[in-house]
Parts: sequence; C-alpha cells; structure tokens
Amino acid sequence: MKLSQGVEWGLHCAMLLAQVPQGGLLRRDALADHFGLPEAYLSKHLQAMTRAGVLYANSGPKGGYRLARDAGSVTVLDVVEAIEGTAPPFVCQEIRQRGTGASSPEECRRTCMVSTVMNDADRAWRSSLRSVTIAGLVARLPGSVHTRNEETLPQLAH
Amino acid sequence: MKLSQGVEWGLHCAMLLAQVPQGGLLRRDALADHFGLPEAYLSKHLQAMTRAGVLYANSGPKGGYRLARDAGSVTVLDVVEAIEGTAPPFVCQEIRQRGTGASSPEECRRTCMVSTVMNDADRAWRSSLRSVTIAGLVARLPGSVHTRNEETLPQLAH
Repeated sequence: MKLSQGVEWGLHCAMLLAQVPQGGLLRRDALADHFGLPEAYLSKHLQAMTRAGVLYANSGPKGGYRLARDAGSVTVLDVVEAIEGTAPPFVCQEIRQRGTGASSPEECRRTCMVSTVMNDADRAWRSSLRSVTIAGLVARLPGSVHTRNEETLPQLAH
Repeated sequence: MKLSQGVEWGLHCAMLLAQVPQGGLLRRDALADHFGLPEAYLSKHLQAMTRAGVLYANSGPKGGYRLARDAGSVTVLDVVEAIEGTAPPFVCQEIRQRGTGASSPEECRRTCMVSTVMNDADRAWRSSLRSVTIAGLVARLPGSVHTRNEETLPQLAH
C-alpha cells in the first residue's frame, strides 16, 4: 500500500497558495519552480484538486491557481482524496460465501466482520486527516519561512 | 491506494485456523478449498504470514498450517502487516528543501508537518487494526458457522 507522491506535492502547493495575498493567483510554473517539481506531472495533480473543489483555476492568459475556499475549511483529507480518490483501500470480495465452507445468505445478512474491521480503520485514518486543515499546517511553518513567503509571494502572484 | 486481496484471504484463513482443535494443522489445499481460492496464489500469502510469525508451517508429508500463537494475541494488524509489509504508505520526499522556495537545513530541523500529519493518520489506522484480535473476529461469527466448523474442522485437520 503506497500513496502517490502527488499527496506531498498537493499539500505543499495548497499550503503555499494559502499564503498568497487575498485574491491572488499563482501560475503552474511558479508552483513547480518553488518546489522543483516537473510541471507537466504537477499539472495532473492540480487539475485533480480543481475537479475536487479544493483549488480554483483560472485558465486565461493570466491563468493560475488559488485555494477554492478559506484555508481553514480545506482539510488535509480534502487534498488527499482529491489526489487519491475516495474509494476505501480494502475491497471485500465476500470469500466467506465461496468454496466448500461457504456461509449461507442467511449467515451473511450482516456485513462480514473482516470488512467491518478494515472499514473502521479506514474511517480512523480519514478522521485523522480531516482533523487538520491547510491553515493549521501553515501555522506550523517556521517563522522565517512565513517571512520569506510574505516577501516573495506578492511578486509571484497576480 | 489499494490493499491486496491477500488481506481478506489472510484474515479469513487465520480465523479458520483459530477454530481448528488445539494442535491441529490444516493443509494448504484445505484452506484454499474452504474459501474457493487459487491454491498457488494463496500459498504466497500463507508463506508471508509464516515469515511474519503469524502462522506456524509444517512442511513434512503431513504438512500444514496453524496459528503460531494464541488467537487472542494475534491482531488484525499482525496479519495485515504480514501481507502488506510495515512500510508507511506516505513517503516524504522533502520537497520543502527543493526548488526556488527551498527551506534551509536550519528551517528543516523538525520533521515536515506534512509528513507528521500523514504519519499520525497512519498510526491511527494501525492502532485501529491492532485493537481487534483474530479471536475477537471469530467471536463475531454467526453461531451456525461456529457449529458447522466444530463439526467439519476436526475431520479436515490432522
């Protein structure tokens, strides 16, 4: 089980966009340059985040990205699900109903306990990711990073 | 992000082995037949569970598998990690230290908050899976399944 590297990219981009002065947009190449990322590949993740309603994209000649809503209402889970999708990682194939030991339909009225346990864990994972917002992440950045971004982002944004 | 179907197979096999009378072994083909699984592919997962210390394997002519320890001390996490490995699904590539916006080594003394949040969620996931044992899963089986297994497993085991 492995998460796409797009999760790290998406979260850092969301954090950077949260620090752009109100209403400003950052172009895709500015985001890619800031983190030294391949622009074409980053583009796919930015598009996924836009489709998921995490980012707002302006595609005109002055195109660029900003957060679609307040950084305090965008959770880490929102970004992770934009990149990775919302499907649970455990897919039950109901093997309890197969083979020589197959349980009957009556015995399978309740969800299989294996599925229940795996889904409980998935909920715990998502709940943990939902408990932190992009604003919360930005607040944990070192002061010197804040200061530098306050200087540089107004010049990069438009 | 997707878990191997071996997770479902491994958990159901561990539950079945937990119901075999004390000291008895189930052969690989008996496990495969019980759940209608392809024996060669199941074999890989059983070997992984054996390497991880979840199962005991006897490879002689009377070979077979049993739980390596009491079902109350084998957790769902033990089985999931035997199949999926123990590596966390998020791998931080430290993009905060790359590109035109790179943070300095001094600014990166503390673990990146993105990594911290992702690892916290992974811990919540593992903690949830650790809170349930194979014995706990078996206890949730319908009474009629228990009765059937009490009748059939002593004949299958050796």
